[in-house]
Amino acid sequence: MSKTNLNALFLGPKSENKRFFSEMLRFLMEDHISWRENFHPEDPPLITPEEHDHASFQDTLQKTREVLVDLAGRLEMSSNPWFSPRYLGHMNSDTIMAANLGYMLALLYNPNNCAYEGSPATTELEVEAGLQLARMLGYDPDKAWGHITSGGTIANYEAIWVARNLKSIPLAVKKVSPDLVSSMSDWELLNQSPGWILDLMDRVKAEGCFEEVRDHSIRGRGMSEFQMGKILVPQSKHYSWNKAADILGIGLQNLQFVPVKSDFRMDIKALAHAIDQNAAQRIPILAVIGVVGSTEEGAVDNIHEIAALRDTCTAKGISFYFHIDAAYGGYARTVFLDDQHRFLDRNEVIKKFQRPDLNWPCIDLYRAFKAIPQADSVTIDPHKLGYIPYSAGGFVLKDKRVLDLISYFAAYVSGQKDEMPGLLGSYIMEGSKPGAAAAAVWTAHELLALHQDGYGEIIRCGIEGTANFFQALRDEPPITIKNDRFMVEPLIRPDLNMVDFAFNRIGNVDLNEMNRLNQAIYNESSFRGGPLYANEWIASKTSLNRREYGEAPLPFIEKFGVPTSQWEHVGEVFVLRSTVMTPYLMKPSVFEEYHHRFMQTMRKRLSKAVTQF
Amino acid sequence: MSKTNLNALFLGPKSENKRFFSEMLRFLMEDHISWRENFHPEDPPLITPEEHDHASFQDTLQKTREVLVDLAGRLEMSSNPWFSPRYLGHMNSDTIMAANLGYMLALLYNPNNCAYEGSPATTELEVEAGLQLARMLGYDPDKAWGHITSGGTIANYEAIWVARNLKSIPLAVKKVSPDLVSSMSDWELLNQSPGWILDLMDRVKAEGCFEEVRDHSIRGRGMSEFQMGKILVPQSKHYSWNKAADILGIGLQNLQFVPVKSDFRMDIKALAHAIDQNAAQRIPILAVIGVVGSTEEGAVDNIHEIAALRDTCTAKGISFYFHIDAAYGGYARTVFLDDQHRFLDRNEVIKKFQRPDLNWPCIDLYRAFKAIPQADSVTIDPHKLGYIPYSAGGFVLKDKRVLDLISYFAAYVSGQKDEMPGLLGSYIMEGSKPGAAAAAVWTAHELLALHQDGYGEIIRCGIEGTANFFQALRDEPPITIKNDRFMVEPLIRPDLNMVDFAFNRIGNVDLNEMNRLNQAIYNESSFRGGPLYANEWIASKTSLNRREYGEAPLPFIEKFGVPTSQWEHVGEVFVLRSTVMTPYLMKPSVFEEYHHRFMQTMRKRLSKAVTQF
Repeated sequence: MSKTNLNALFLGPKSENKRFFSEMLRFLMEDHISWRENFHPEDPPLITPEEHDHASFQDTLQKTREVLVDLAGRLEMSSNPWFSPRYLGHMNSDTIMAANLGYMLALLYNPNNCAYEGSPATTELEVEAGLQLARMLGYDPDKAWGHITSGGTIANYEAIWVARNLKSIPLAVKKVSPDLVSSMSDWELLNQSPGWILDLMDRVKAEGCFEEVRDHSIRGRGMSEFQMGKILVPQSKHYSWNKAADILGIGLQNLQFVPVKSDFRMDIKALAHAIDQNAAQRIPILAVIGVVGSTEEGAVDNIHEIAALRDTCTAKGISFYFHIDAAYGGYARTVFLDDQHRFLDRNEVIKKFQRPDLNWPCIDLYRAFKAIPQADSVTIDPHKLGYIPYSAGGFVLKDKRVLDLISYFAAYVSGQKDEMPGLLGSYIMEGSKPGAAAAAVWTAHELLALHQDGYGEIIRCGIEGTANFFQALRDEPPITIKNDRFMVEPLIRPDLNMVDFAFNRIGNVDLNEMNRLNQAIYNESSFRGGPLYANEWIASKTSLNRREYGEAPLPFIEKFGVPTSQWEHVGEVFVLRSTVMTPYLMKPSVFEEYHHRFMQTMRKRLSKAVTQF
Repeated sequence: MSKTNLNALFLGPKSENKRFFSEMLRFLMEDHISWRENFHPEDPPLITPEEHDHASFQDTLQKTREVLVDLAGRLEMSSNPWFSPRYLGHMNSDTIMAANLGYMLALLYNPNNCAYEGSPATTELEVEAGLQLARMLGYDPDKAWGHITSGGTIANYEAIWVARNLKSIPLAVKKVSPDLVSSMSDWELLNQSPGWILDLMDRVKAEGCFEEVRDHSIRGRGMSEFQMGKILVPQSKHYSWNKAADILGIGLQNLQFVPVKSDFRMDIKALAHAIDQNAAQRIPILAVIGVVGSTEEGAVDNIHEIAALRDTCTAKGISFYFHIDAAYGGYARTVFLDDQHRFLDRNEVIKKFQRPDLNWPCIDLYRAFKAIPQADSVTIDPHKLGYIPYSAGGFVLKDKRVLDLISYFAAYVSGQKDEMPGLLGSYIMEGSKPGAAAAAVWTAHELLALHQDGYGEIIRCGIEGTANFFQALRDEPPITIKNDRFMVEPLIRPDLNMVDFAFNRIGNVDLNEMNRLNQAIYNESSFRGGPLYANEWIASKTSLNRREYGEAPLPFIEKFGVPTSQWEHVGEVFVLRSTVMTPYLMKPSVFEEYHHRFMQTMRKRLSKAVTQF
């Protein structure tokens, strides 16, 4: 088969593929309708034609129409038009037509992937989609395991759940079967690597005391009896990590933020220092989180350096769980894989881009993506760079043996063990969950393979469109509004497809004024500026503050001529945030057209903002 | 408007309403298609007609067709036909057509209710649906708050999250602002009622030290520094409570199971005893969970007695958080409400049934539903008795002041406070979440009001169909297969619309043999018996064992002439489990027809099972 044609993937910014979409939808709906009709043909209809003539029957249909028309009106009035290249905001764009159709079809069958009994078809699709993700991330599919979550937040919680219970096992073994760990101190037991602990679990199982050990781990005894130490996350972390520390009983005081550098990637020296400092105080490290695609800046941590540091630390007797939050950036690994899922040489990746001068990925990015399988688990969201409708997050584990730590099978009930692969609700955080979401992910993965010729194609387009946007911002000459001139600067060179940027009046050295200007532009570029449907250009925003980011944003504000003292004084910089997920801005002609309109709009918004002050 | 006509609500067991469904779907899809086409008419199409002629374009469309046909085939082959009265298994049936259509439409707009910015339309629908549920449950909508979760499991976690953080506040206040609680011992501080603690929080806020207090609560310090005591749940609890105790850092050892009686409702004397015993050992009670509709038996705990017991205990200085897990049964409260949401007299409820001899609800059930608003929070799932497609659970709080304990606004960032009602992700467990699920719930609530004339109608039908099924089973004469005669008995008189039942060979006193028989029948009545589409009658199953249920199932096995010694020896009884959600089995003629087929099928299955032994 020829390569995927991206133009045939989406309904399109002008519903260009409406005929195909409508025909396919009709076909699928008729298929479902016949499925019901043909089930036990001997059963007569239960809603008779006479029923249709009842006034109340027609009234209920009419009420149904009215409510749905009301819903349609509300959706039209205030939904985000993310199908259009005029929407460059959050990590959203058009979603894959096949995924939408797959979701809509599966919804009518209403499977619940909590238990195989409720979803014989879609549980299998979920398990398959999980293994597809595992292979794409570089894990061994025979040892790994993955599943669909309702979002990246839940996947992050699962990571801490696994890490917390796993790291408490050696102390539990000491209580139940001390001979197995006889020569080791508590400190040593708290500092073993996940692989070592999993092997210890195998020995415990061989001794027949696994359930008892599990009852003595955090799962059974609770956090009150344990001091598990710190979770280290970069300052650029998503706020779900704060929620995770709270919910899992770790406590926010045990969530330690590692500084990021001015490229918003974790400072690995600072990470090493934090580990050493904690170790010196006999505080264990429960887990280190690396981020592949920070939510606010799109930055990718140097995963290879974190992995190498863990190896060094483990050798020194200080080990920890290593999780990657790739909720946003995970699917970008498809760009690096050939159709046999082999990790390509960097030059081969660079050559795949239409603009090889782009020189993407840089060496660090390349190494970071290559090193992903060194982590113990990964959060990866199909509903972000997987172009799947909400909600589909993903959690992928390197070694499925850890599932025994979080599983809730009643082991004493005969006959359940053989259902294991199907009873998802028994070893994940959620219970009831939509099989339709799994169907949507599976459908997209089948259509678009998880390598350079499938998903890699769309993501490359996004990265090239981003490069166009970034370069245009950087090259933008000063914008004159009456007597003032304005400059615009991007925050960092994008690692993936997000560009943060801000405007400032040339000569203005007041950070508060600069923030007010960008806040005013954002207000016009969002739902705050009136009906979104009439909006000419839509963005998102974020605010980088000193409490969370330390001095990392300083070089950025200095580009505007704003002095360091302002940063110390104001402590916050407000920026516009654009994710370029649309594949259409890659084409130079389309990009120029849209960028021209963008700059016109910005001129209007600057002009309006200026008159407000 | 006339009353809701239930026949117009669903696509129907024979797709009887296919014309309306298809027309409405086409209308909604065309509406969305036009929405895209008409957005900025000056933007030209980005997918040109010439593109369609490319071989790769046609190939990608063809591949899309193939993948979707593959998906459709998998769904048809092994999905559950829950639209048919032949499916009497898990709590599933046809889902409301308007909810399905609302979901499908909203899916194309792909809103994310994590933040208002991503879902200006559907965040409002979620907040509205949450308040509708709060009012239906009897809470004051001005003080209460509710939202849609991915399922009941997550809602249950949120309850423990709230309870745990709230109950730790008094100790945190003692550290930060001891004057406010100067005269109280730690034991007293651990035994305050939720209302008292919320009022204390108000005083703390007035003193300006709320954030510091929060940092000293479990949220900030972690569970390592706290001993919160026990969570008391009935033996009939869902296994998500075990997961909750693990995940929230409570530990399974602190989850205490309160015996249920032979009606599978919590034994309130045993609950009182458990509270007293813990108090005598100076172990606080973190929370008591009441169940409205146990997942395995459909039993409703005597909520009014739990509420009264809490009042008594609080007066004695032993208070706790009170949560109701009404994931399954919550919507049944609509049966008790008039169109002004006033709680009806019992006689008025009874008279609403076509069979008033049914005498539903019994006095305890009536009082239990009436007492629901005395709980601090409730789990209630639209995707169960709300007849909504997966996944839509719900969590409803009596007093929204507790949100401050679990919120993750960056309070120091100006401008965020005013977005509060919209930033759902900041005070719920999940992050990204489908606005489409909220749209589906809202659509159904608008169509079918949450009182006796709306949802009450469908649920009454289910309860009457259940009564038909229960009575038929109880009245069933012995079934002769060759030389053997078999009896069938229901487990309990159904509180809602679930019937557990089992068969036994008359004269057999071996519980293992009885279990094998019912397991064999289940195998034939589920996906294990071959293609579900060809199956004549489909059920679910459960297994009640002594470890979890104590002696509660004993009277049931005695009905079969199986002696107590067998229960002590085997310790487990396997039963078939049927939820009658379909509204069609209420009609005596339809019921007789389907029941006749059911008994024919059972004869075949008994016969087959007998030859296997």
